[in-house]
Amino acid sequence: MRIGVIGGGQLGRMMALAGHPLGLEFLFLDRSNDTPAAQVAPSLVGEFTDPKLLNRLARECDLLTFDWENISVESLRALGSSVRIAPSLRALATARDRIKEKQLFDKLGIPTTRYAAVNNPRSLDKALREIGLPGVIKTRSLGYDGKGQAVVRTRDEAHAALLSLPPVPLIYEEFIPFDFEVSAIGARNAQGQTALYPLNHNLHREGILRLTRAPFDSGRLQSKAQSHLRKLLQYFAYQGVLNIEFFVKGQRLLANELAPRVHNSGHWTIEGAATSQFENHLRAILNLPLGSTAARGYSAMINLIGSLPPRDSWLAIPELHWHDYGKTPRPGRKVGHVTVLAQNAMLRDRLANKLLKDIAKHEAISPSPRR
Amino acid sequence: MRIGVIGGGQLGRMMALAGHPLGLEFLFLDRSNDTPAAQVAPSLVGEFTDPKLLNRLARECDLLTFDWENISVESLRALGSSVRIAPSLRALATARDRIKEKQLFDKLGIPTTRYAAVNNPRSLDKALREIGLPGVIKTRSLGYDGKGQAVVRTRDEAHAALLSLPPVPLIYEEFIPFDFEVSAIGARNAQGQTALYPLNHNLHREGILRLTRAPFDSGRLQSKAQSHLRKLLQYFAYQGVLNIEFFVKGQRLLANELAPRVHNSGHWTIEGAATSQFENHLRAILNLPLGSTAARGYSAMINLIGSLPPRDSWLAIPELHWHDYGKTPRPGRKVGHVTVLAQNAMLRDRLANKLLKDIAKHEAISPSPRR
Repeated sequence: MRIGVIGGGQLGRMMALAGHPLGLEFLFLDRSNDTPAAQVAPSLVGEFTDPKLLNRLARECDLLTFDWENISVESLRALGSSVRIAPSLRALATARDRIKEKQLFDKLGIPTTRYAAVNNPRSLDKALREIGLPGVIKTRSLGYDGKGQAVVRTRDEAHAALLSLPPVPLIYEEFIPFDFEVSAIGARNAQGQTALYPLNHNLHREGILRLTRAPFDSGRLQSKAQSHLRKLLQYFAYQGVLNIEFFVKGQRLLANELAPRVHNSGHWTIEGAATSQFENHLRAILNLPLGSTAARGYSAMINLIGSLPPRDSWLAIPELHWHDYGKTPRPGRKVGHVTVLAQNAMLRDRLANKLLKDIAKHEAISPSPRR
Repeated sequence: MRIGVIGGGQLGRMMALAGHPLGLEFLFLDRSNDTPAAQVAPSLVGEFTDPKLLNRLARECDLLTFDWENISVESLRALGSSVRIAPSLRALATARDRIKEKQLFDKLGIPTTRYAAVNNPRSLDKALREIGLPGVIKTRSLGYDGKGQAVVRTRDEAHAALLSLPPVPLIYEEFIPFDFEVSAIGARNAQGQTALYPLNHNLHREGILRLTRAPFDSGRLQSKAQSHLRKLLQYFAYQGVLNIEFFVKGQRLLANELAPRVHNSGHWTIEGAATSQFENHLRAILNLPLGSTAARGYSAMINLIGSLPPRDSWLAIPELHWHDYGKTPRPGRKVGHVTVLAQNAMLRDRLANKLLKDIAKHEAISPSPRR
């Protein structure tokens, strides 16, 4: 059984590492041969929209999936029924368009921020009147890691942002001064079996995820988030792993965005859960029984951005698990992550804070600092 | 950092899967390109003794190691100081020769079975007089999975075995009607840090390991076994993972054999310990800090021999972890293993027994049964 994966980043790499023990083979498609996935499985090199390469992938693989959503739904739709694609293109198309995403949240009764489509100065002014300031202007699609968006506090800032963003359809959303962010990850297979992971608490900096802690101790928030996640899995008759991010304000959850794939905030599941999100994604798209999502202790996942901290001393930390993506270091680039496990949330948080401080020190003395 | 691995079997494959997250690359050498390791990392194809290929491996890699011990110490010694090899050739040479192994056990005060070297009918008769019957005749080297040995109960059987075994140096050992078998696995790095795993209880059938359970509940046996293991690690100033197998008779441990490498009885550590034997082997040979060997619950590892049981129904068992080695099924061949985790030893044992029965049933109805 060979799985074709569109996108060969670290998510694809970890998917392949999880899939080999299941007896699966992989073939990746990415724009460069120097990708994290190409180091662990064969890879085709070319554009994600190249019909020749997509057809080859369809021909040589039993099933296609993807490791990010910034790919072309139209190019994949052109493959017709020649190959099964999971998750579905319907889920992918929704997640690629912030307006469709919000409309779906509304339809399913999942609370979200107020929003309006923006295409020009006139529709921007209309949005500002309806929703008010401050707000966030974002591209409707293709944004990630905080790219392609701007927080605006005045009408002038809003119009300046409109000019600075690429000339593509935009969305204006109300700015939520949220307390913190959480995400819920779950898998569903074609038979309708679902498996939901404990809730993740996520800390971002400069738009990039820095720290995820799970399980995050909040019974009520978790059950609310999981109920929203279940609605989405059911709506799409979903196959694979789905992630949903929420802003939390008091006891309120506001859905921010979907990712129809394995997600950075689920990396802790490799060591911190009985079955990783990567393995469960593969089980789900193959319609295999899903594995247990039970947590093993308390995990913290820290992204390594720009460069790796000193591996040899970090490995001396008990229950620290190292994940090098095999990437060339570059400012702002996710080059790896570590996960630490502890017996309780307090010990976990103390260790995570210590590591974040170490990273800050390391960044401060690094010869090529981030800023 | 690239690791050259001599032997590309399932042990090498699992080593590579554990090493990629550490940022390591691999280059394997094996006699075929159709090996479990070649599916997850680049591979050279040729004889283990080929000086050209060994030199290339030494040149292109920062460090050499091996995934089995049926390789040529002399060919590796010829590489001189061009590349570091870990574990050391001294440890490899000892483990490859049952007489040297026994002599070392004696020297270090590790109890073992009585033995004598046998090369011809005369030395066999001498051995029979000294040690008595029943006994086991084995090749001094190159035996594995019960191959190259025979249990003999009479003088006639002994001489018949001498004729049937290959014309190589042999060893005659007393036959121990042992109660059961255990093995102890540990890692040591160049700085002398050691990390020992909980004791394994091993069940063999037809000379092949079928079931390993760990932790095995025996404080006294475990501390004795670990003390012997420590002596060996220290004696060799060992770098890497070392396995020692014991027969257990009452409260007595009798050392049976060494394996200077990751070992089948340690596969449960992938999910059942904080750090797997594969990762700790790599950490050890690279002189990195060793990872925690603490057990996560109670594990049972079952080898899948000849063919795989029905994957899709087995994956429905909670906390079952599937390991397909990507091998063509063939009677008697280890094609994979599964590990199950449970909260206590009783539940673990019950589940393991159920799975062994399923396998027996599957073998009975298989179109190409083992015998």
